Amino acid sequence: MTSPFVPGTAVYIEGRPGGPLSGLSFAAKDLFDVAGHPTGGGNPDWARQNPVPTRHAWAVQALLDAGATLMGKTITDEVSLGILGENAFEGTPLNPAAPGHVPGGSSSGSASAVAQGLCDTALGTDTGGSVRVPASFCGLHGIRPTHGRLDLTGMMPQAPSSDTTGWFARDAATFARVSAVLLQEAIGDAMPTRLVIATDAFGFADPEAADALAPMLDRLKRLVPDWREEVMAPQGLSAWSRAQRTLQPIEAWETFRPWVERDNPRFAFGVARGLVMAAMTPEADRGWAALVRREARGRLRHLLPPGTILAMPTTPFAAPRAGLPLPALDSVRAAINVLCAHGGLAGHPQVSIPGATVDGRPIGLSLLAARGADAMLVRMALAMERA
Amino acid sequence: MTSPFVPGTAVYIEGRPGGPLSGLSFAAKDLFDVAGHPTGGGNPDWARQNPVPTRHAWAVQALLDAGATLMGKTITDEVSLGILGENAFEGTPLNPAAPGHVPGGSSSGSASAVAQGLCDTALGTDTGGSVRVPASFCGLHGIRPTHGRLDLTGMMPQAPSSDTTGWFARDAATFARVSAVLLQEAIGDAMPTRLVIATDAFGFADPEAADALAPMLDRLKRLVPDWREEVMAPQGLSAWSRAQRTLQPIEAWETFRPWVERDNPRFAFGVARGLVMAAMTPEADRGWAALVRREARGRLRHLLPPGTILAMPTTPFAAPRAGLPLPALDSVRAAINVLCAHGGLAGHPQVSIPGATVDGRPIGLSLLAARGADAMLVRMALAMERA
Repeated sequence: MTSPFVPGTAVYIEGRPGGPLSGLSFAAKDLFDVAGHPTGGGNPDWARQNPVPTRHAWAVQALLDAGATLMGKTITDEVSLGILGENAFEGTPLNPAAPGHVPGGSSSGSASAVAQGLCDTALGTDTGGSVRVPASFCGLHGIRPTHGRLDLTGMMPQAPSSDTTGWFARDAATFARVSAVLLQEAIGDAMPTRLVIATDAFGFADPEAADALAPMLDRLKRLVPDWREEVMAPQGLSAWSRAQRTLQPIEAWETFRPWVERDNPRFAFGVARGLVMAAMTPEADRGWAALVRREARGRLRHLLPPGTILAMPTTPFAAPRAGLPLPALDSVRAAINVLCAHGGLAGHPQVSIPGATVDGRPIGLSLLAARGADAMLVRMALAMERA
Repeated sequence: MTSPFVPGTAVYIEGRPGGPLSGLSFAAKDLFDVAGHPTGGGNPDWARQNPVPTRHAWAVQALLDAGATLMGKTITDEVSLGILGENAFEGTPLNPAAPGHVPGGSSSGSASAVAQGLCDTALGTDTGGSVRVPASFCGLHGIRPTHGRLDLTGMMPQAPSSDTTGWFARDAATFARVSAVLLQEAIGDAMPTRLVIATDAFGFADPEAADALAPMLDRLKRLVPDWREEVMAPQGLSAWSRAQRTLQPIEAWETFRPWVERDNPRFAFGVARGLVMAAMTPEADRGWAALVRREARGRLRHLLPPGTILAMPTTPFAAPRAGLPLPALDSVRAAINVLCAHGGLAGHPQVSIPGATVDGRPIGLSLLAARGADAMLVRMALAMERA
């Protein structure tokens, strides 16, 4: 277990005085440009790809302008291709809530740094679960905003049709302050009027995880008394997952292919394997996956009209132990993806809220809403903390 | 371009006084065990796999016993999976005969060290061309002995049904001294009585390469006047190559799979890709390749009775420039493999002899013989140097 900050980097930029985030500190995943510092992308051969940035990424600039102070750049899974937070080149950031277990990834260092209290908030990215999963595993608030809502300038892409910028905080109040700045919208008092509990998602989680989340679900039901149980994915969450695990790697391969072919970069075997298999995907599989994506989008639009939220476990279990061999790691990743795939497929906003544990290790409860209703989800995080 | 020796290692072991190799120095590819030193295998995660060896590899011990002094361990392509000699972790050893061009691999550092005059001979391994190719590119004598002839104890395996221990020297006399020790057979005076010139292999080489080798072929014809032209592979050298490129990676995957699955090691993308594709090979392709291998063995047994040698270009061209992008590198590797596949498929001994250049860069002429007739090939290297 290692420091959450990228080895060999030291970054410190004070925020503009007098802003709404004055007094807060933040870190940025090493996919975000910080002027004057190479963007490493979690891979030893990525930085050679690009000149040292001369401008901050949009999200970094927004936080600095709002008064937050940048404390460092954090470890990411290699070029954001990973969900557990184990980087073969830079190490595995400590999960202080579950030592010996993974922090979750790919925004591993950002989650670790916030969870350890080394900063108040931190920027991550979420393409296939990379903010939601470490938020769940480290016991943090974390958001994957509506896809397309934030300006992603200066953020290293992976699969653009799924990429988002997200962030973490330990407490709901800080989470709300940061969210208001990055969403560019005040966190109002509007509460949802209807709650859907995704029975298939709770059914897919380990029974101990579902049991651990039950008290949080009870609090939620008291806050939104008009609740009902419903299947989220009639086609099967596994079918959604298969579609996302077809489309996202193909897009990632398209993103990274020019670099890979030119530089033959170093990767952990499991990362390279994902790119190789993406490159070999039959066109028929891609076509099928694109249709499933359309169906998933239709289903979530139907389930989540304005004013409705959906509750589900963020992950099917708490953080697995670090250092699993590849076949076991593949099973774990596949299971996590089943509860994350809807994000990349449909782009709805999702907030993961801490408050439950399994054997002492955190697990998050996730809320989804209509596209654009990000602020209402942040409002619910505040309400849940007070309830 | 880097030193041929493995970074961070320093090995020096004096040979036993009074042996037949007294006064000679040698290096060992970092696939050979040297007692008290980790065997790195050209990969940053391999050494963790095994305890530090307590005994020398058989070939290392044999050279020390014969009086040669070990000067160092040399860079190899990662776990011997490479043919050009570019190691993303340890660098590309200098090819002093063609600066800016690759040394050839996977026994890259051994060839580079000998070619630079840093030692007199060096141990390599040849599974799919890993001695023959760097011998050709660096302008050295190099041998791939009869498969199964040498004791491979303490040599890291790749594809055991094709793996051999080979070696390099600058001049034929040194080559013969070392060969007598490692073959455990005096290099006699017996000359071959018949010569086969492989028209398909010369036809596959670049025309400039074939032209460059013509004067050496003329010398050979004077030494073995009973010569004829013949097709080496009626099925096509490409079919032999496809069979070898099916079987060898599958065997390599079987060798490395327990390590890869347990440690998820770091690889250059192109190396990982080879293992991934091997793991996905359809059983029908493997079955076809095994039959082609039987046919190739039958063909070479027929072409090469005792007393007959076969001549062919060692490589289809001289050393390509270093740092090619992956698609170009794939084409180069595929072409090289067409002229190397017979070695791994059929296991006949082969010696590459220097003496020709294309645009100033070396290219070797190869001689093959019946299984077990290794010493006669070494004898021919001496005869060619004197002719």
